[in-house]
Amino acid sequence: MSDLSHIRIVLVEPLYSGNVGSICRVMANMGLSDLVLVAPQIVDGWEEGERMAVHAGGLLAKRREVATLSEAVGDCVAVAGTTARLGLYRQHVRTPRESAAELGKLASNAPVALVFGREDKGLLNEEIGLCTHLIRIPTADAYVSLNLAQAVMVCCYELFVAQGNYEAPTEKSEAAPAAHRIKMMEMWRQMLLLIGFVKPDKIDHMMQGFQRIFTRGAITVDDVHILMGVARQTEWAAKRGKKEQVTNNQMSSEQ
Amino acid sequence: MSDLSHIRIVLVEPLYSGNVGSICRVMANMGLSDLVLVAPQIVDGWEEGERMAVHAGGLLAKRREVATLSEAVGDCVAVAGTTARLGLYRQHVRTPRESAAELGKLASNAPVALVFGREDKGLLNEEIGLCTHLIRIPTADAYVSLNLAQAVMVCCYELFVAQGNYEAPTEKSEAAPAAHRIKMMEMWRQMLLLIGFVKPDKIDHMMQGFQRIFTRGAITVDDVHILMGVARQTEWAAKRGKKEQVTNNQMSSEQ
Repeated sequence: MSDLSHIRIVLVEPLYSGNVGSICRVMANMGLSDLVLVAPQIVDGWEEGERMAVHAGGLLAKRREVATLSEAVGDCVAVAGTTARLGLYRQHVRTPRESAAELGKLASNAPVALVFGREDKGLLNEEIGLCTHLIRIPTADAYVSLNLAQAVMVCCYELFVAQGNYEAPTEKSEAAPAAHRIKMMEMWRQMLLLIGFVKPDKIDHMMQGFQRIFTRGAITVDDVHILMGVARQTEWAAKRGKKEQVTNNQMSSEQ
Repeated sequence: MSDLSHIRIVLVEPLYSGNVGSICRVMANMGLSDLVLVAPQIVDGWEEGERMAVHAGGLLAKRREVATLSEAVGDCVAVAGTTARLGLYRQHVRTPRESAAELGKLASNAPVALVFGREDKGLLNEEIGLCTHLIRIPTADAYVSLNLAQAVMVCCYELFVAQGNYEAPTEKSEAAPAAHRIKMMEMWRQMLLLIGFVKPDKIDHMMQGFQRIFTRGAITVDDVHILMGVARQTEWAAKRGKKEQVTNNQMSSEQ
């Protein structure tokens, strides 16, 4: 487990506070906390920003603002700029996934900046010139320009995943051993015959169907217990039904 | 190259049109086009939605609205619900990355739904019950709740990347063969000696430094040509300087 506290999100001249607020939320979601704005040009006040930050308002409040990109990244060992365009000086771009492991590693003991440009025109060539890495987010050709906060999301998400911070919730119950599964299938065979679901000469074929249904994915010990329970309960209900029918018949005949 | 036209984004009772608009943009960015809203509860009119959709307004306009989730997913061969919570019926969740390849494959010839719940309380248990797959997006423990449009972004991005639609822009120039690189290093050695950058007894050590600087990453044929050009030009300028100095000295002595 490593953390991303050395990753700095740098926004160059952002225009809309809603995007900055959304980015604060994204950063909190992905475990980042260092936000620097370069010469912000917010046109709509900060109300929308606070609304979009939701529970990450603290991060919005402790943002730093500086005048130039050089100032924002001066102490960083790596500066990764993002671009949607491919130009003469933008050919050496990599995807967020390709960059994530290296940037995360560099950030393990020194600041690393992820730099995002203006909503309307991205980063200028002279700003790209300050970057040691270039990142371009994969998109469909028809619409390559991402919303600023969405671009930050993808990059932070890739960094977070690359850190191996997240363990996928694994199956709580272990996979059932074959003998357990076979015993369950035998209980189902008896139950299906008992309730008259299929005739005895068709049961083998039908059991192949149930085998396919039950074991399409990994079947766990818990799953087998549930399916055994259904077989047992069905048998009990079917036998009680038979008994009641017998009793009713007896009662009828007694009247 | 395959496409994601069979992936349907289903939003259950969304509250804010800005999120729906952002989602339209995300879908266009990632090559999706099928949007269904289940009983939308939009509280703020559609103006913000249109603003956030930007160039994906067409997608917003052709959204479908239905009354129930069953209706929205009735024709889908797989229904993937998203959840931030882990409960009794939510244990079999996978990450977007783990799910992406399978869902993309299922969607190659039949509709597959990605279902997202309300901004404030996600999907209800009865809605989770309609899902064949469950997805949970990795987050930091401190703040697990993603903005709705951000959640859609991560899922669509993973689907897009898994389809192999995106080829990372590769280095245009091929890696330089060793002989080419060695010849360049020899030109630099001569040049550095000529300009008096190091004394001859220190040049081997210095060349190790340059070797390290120039070959920290892959060095391409183009890179080698640039570095050879610098060595050649420096030699030319240094020799001209010497000549001019000689000329000047001669002139001085002639005066």
